[in-house]
Amino acid sequence: MKSIIAEKVEQAGNILRELQIDAWLTFVRETTETGDPVLPLILGRNLTWYSALIITRSGERVAIVGQYDDGAVKSVGIWAEVIPYVEGIREPLVDTLRRLDPQKLAVNFSRDDVTADGLSHGMFLALGEYLADTPYGDRLVSAENIIAQLRGRKSAGEIQRIRSAIATTDRIFDEVAGFATPGKTERDVARFMHDLVEKQNLDLAWDRRQCPTVNTGPESMIGHGIPSELAIEPGHIFHIDFGVRQDDYCSDIQRCWYVPRRGETEPPEAVRRVFDTVVAAIQAAAATIKPGVECWKVDAAARQTVVDAGYPEYRHATGHSIGRSAHDGGSILGPKWERYGQLPYRKLEEGNVFTLELGIENVDGCGYLGLEEMIVVTAGGCEYLSRPQTVLPLLQ
Amino acid sequence: MKSIIAEKVEQAGNILRELQIDAWLTFVRETTETGDPVLPLILGRNLTWYSALIITRSGERVAIVGQYDDGAVKSVGIWAEVIPYVEGIREPLVDTLRRLDPQKLAVNFSRDDVTADGLSHGMFLALGEYLADTPYGDRLVSAENIIAQLRGRKSAGEIQRIRSAIATTDRIFDEVAGFATPGKTERDVARFMHDLVEKQNLDLAWDRRQCPTVNTGPESMIGHGIPSELAIEPGHIFHIDFGVRQDDYCSDIQRCWYVPRRGETEPPEAVRRVFDTVVAAIQAAAATIKPGVECWKVDAAARQTVVDAGYPEYRHATGHSIGRSAHDGGSILGPKWERYGQLPYRKLEEGNVFTLELGIENVDGCGYLGLEEMIVVTAGGCEYLSRPQTVLPLLQ
Repeated sequence: MKSIIAEKVEQAGNILRELQIDAWLTFVRETTETGDPVLPLILGRNLTWYSALIITRSGERVAIVGQYDDGAVKSVGIWAEVIPYVEGIREPLVDTLRRLDPQKLAVNFSRDDVTADGLSHGMFLALGEYLADTPYGDRLVSAENIIAQLRGRKSAGEIQRIRSAIATTDRIFDEVAGFATPGKTERDVARFMHDLVEKQNLDLAWDRRQCPTVNTGPESMIGHGIPSELAIEPGHIFHIDFGVRQDDYCSDIQRCWYVPRRGETEPPEAVRRVFDTVVAAIQAAAATIKPGVECWKVDAAARQTVVDAGYPEYRHATGHSIGRSAHDGGSILGPKWERYGQLPYRKLEEGNVFTLELGIENVDGCGYLGLEEMIVVTAGGCEYLSRPQTVLPLLQ
Repeated sequence: MKSIIAEKVEQAGNILRELQIDAWLTFVRETTETGDPVLPLILGRNLTWYSALIITRSGERVAIVGQYDDGAVKSVGIWAEVIPYVEGIREPLVDTLRRLDPQKLAVNFSRDDVTADGLSHGMFLALGEYLADTPYGDRLVSAENIIAQLRGRKSAGEIQRIRSAIATTDRIFDEVAGFATPGKTERDVARFMHDLVEKQNLDLAWDRRQCPTVNTGPESMIGHGIPSELAIEPGHIFHIDFGVRQDDYCSDIQRCWYVPRRGETEPPEAVRRVFDTVVAAIQAAAATIKPGVECWKVDAAARQTVVDAGYPEYRHATGHSIGRSAHDGGSILGPKWERYGQLPYRKLEEGNVFTLELGIENVDGCGYLGLEEMIVVTAGGCEYLSRPQTVLPLLQ
């Protein structure tokens, strides 16, 4: 079976032809310090000295790397030409560009998309110096469209890995539902989940301090907060935002429970109404999804559902790309807010995988209620990758 | 006891006064994707939306962050003013800069120093847009000197942590010497070392695939190669390059052994002569070190020792800064080669911690012989933090 790196580098060649860009340069150094998010997709290891990875629309693949990285890059098996150097990259880089002579040379910077913004400003200045006596300095363009499509169009192999990460996450949520009884604190639950993840030799999908986010009751800090010493109590909504990274691919799921007060056999009316609204908003978003639709429309469908039901608008996007990273960059299912730049105007493509997530704060003094599902865009619409939560279970 | 983050942020204020820079801006987003190497020093956690951390020479500390990161940043306890936003950072950022009104505003880009180059080119463009109608866009300067001094001047607490990481590394090398018998492969040894590190719940100091680097005999791939299936055999030099990260601080040490052939009771003359040369070169470097000396002179002392003994010049710098990262940026004990830019011209400062490392290839058909020690610059010279290897032991 072809490795995902081989699949992706081949896909990159096709995307270059489609976008009519002649060559794509990934230019990095000391990537254990400041990695380019593209590197795991096209190389799968770190580089030490100034390094250039060049893919062209006609199929060349050239890696120019410090001599000590030479062997490791060759062993990846997809970089047809590996050029090692000792004193400086300038000469082999300029020689290679003159030979390839691209009319458009894409490099990894992006105003809006962090996953396409791996070129540091210092490296951009270095590149400018190196290319000063060549025509190529004036031919630089952003690689953001290349990278968005490369990350966004998941192959069958990638989607299979995402499904596996979700299945693991579901099993962990099932165990949490048994562990998280009244009296346990947010931190107890986070620790329990970390232990499960470590026992299974998995990684978390994002920063350990905030994965999981655990919220119980009305005092809890919403958002990217750190699990606190607040204890689960009757009358609380109990909420978790969590994901794993398994075989390099991520899940990102939110689940909710209600902790009944003495004598309650179901959540209070007000809580149920909020839960139903959140479920309906996610379904409204899913119903809007199909290839060619602009992303902001998906957000608007969910957001309008919440507002129409009389609740305050949530202050984040309805969904983000997910795959190799929990926030996989490229398109965002968000409103046309300044901080999302051009990303909400991108069009959905088959094979894109997104979260659908939203919540409502201060629900009847019971806390925060939020859900998050994952979907893949199909030829005719979308398919849920997670099993959508449509019932609010009791935790007791 | 003050946390190292508190120590470092306080130190940053002093460095700004010393360098006469009014304000220092760290400008980041989605730092789990592309982190700024400065962030662990001044915040110690990740940020999601566009975020600005500002330290001024008069002591202000302002963090402007997305609302969901608000609580986590406050809980660090050293950011006196935390300004959360919802729709975009432009307004609170511009307002804050107008209030502070810096004549010089340092941001994290550097042509030469990767640890001071955390600002992506896309974020640089975003900053330019935000500051377009203000005077501050023209007042941007590189923060590389701030960061080099901040990382380079180790506090007593930092040096203590580095000593502990070295002590752990020594214990691991002792165990390796018992495990690595003829017949074991490079990969066996790497696996054994990874197990030791995991049992002790430590991190590796750099990329797992290349930490440790293990080389046995003349066929082994030198440099940042991946441990292979080559087996340890009589007549081999056996070499390891390895470090741990413990309590956030790193070690980076190289050790060598000789595997005797039948009847040999000591390494061959040619191997001993190379070993003595490597030891002498490291000692020559150490003897050159004291505050105020330009870094390239330390490199030249070691390099000349090797060349004078009739061996080929090694193709890397004699030493690098080490601390929070194995390659801690700032000064480099390297020759005046293009790829080191201005770094070899920096002057040594008290409290700087460096490696001293070099090796010689193809030693008499026995393989690669290299050593690496760690030193701290003192008021009058330097002190070894590692116990320097001065004997080449037999491995059997």
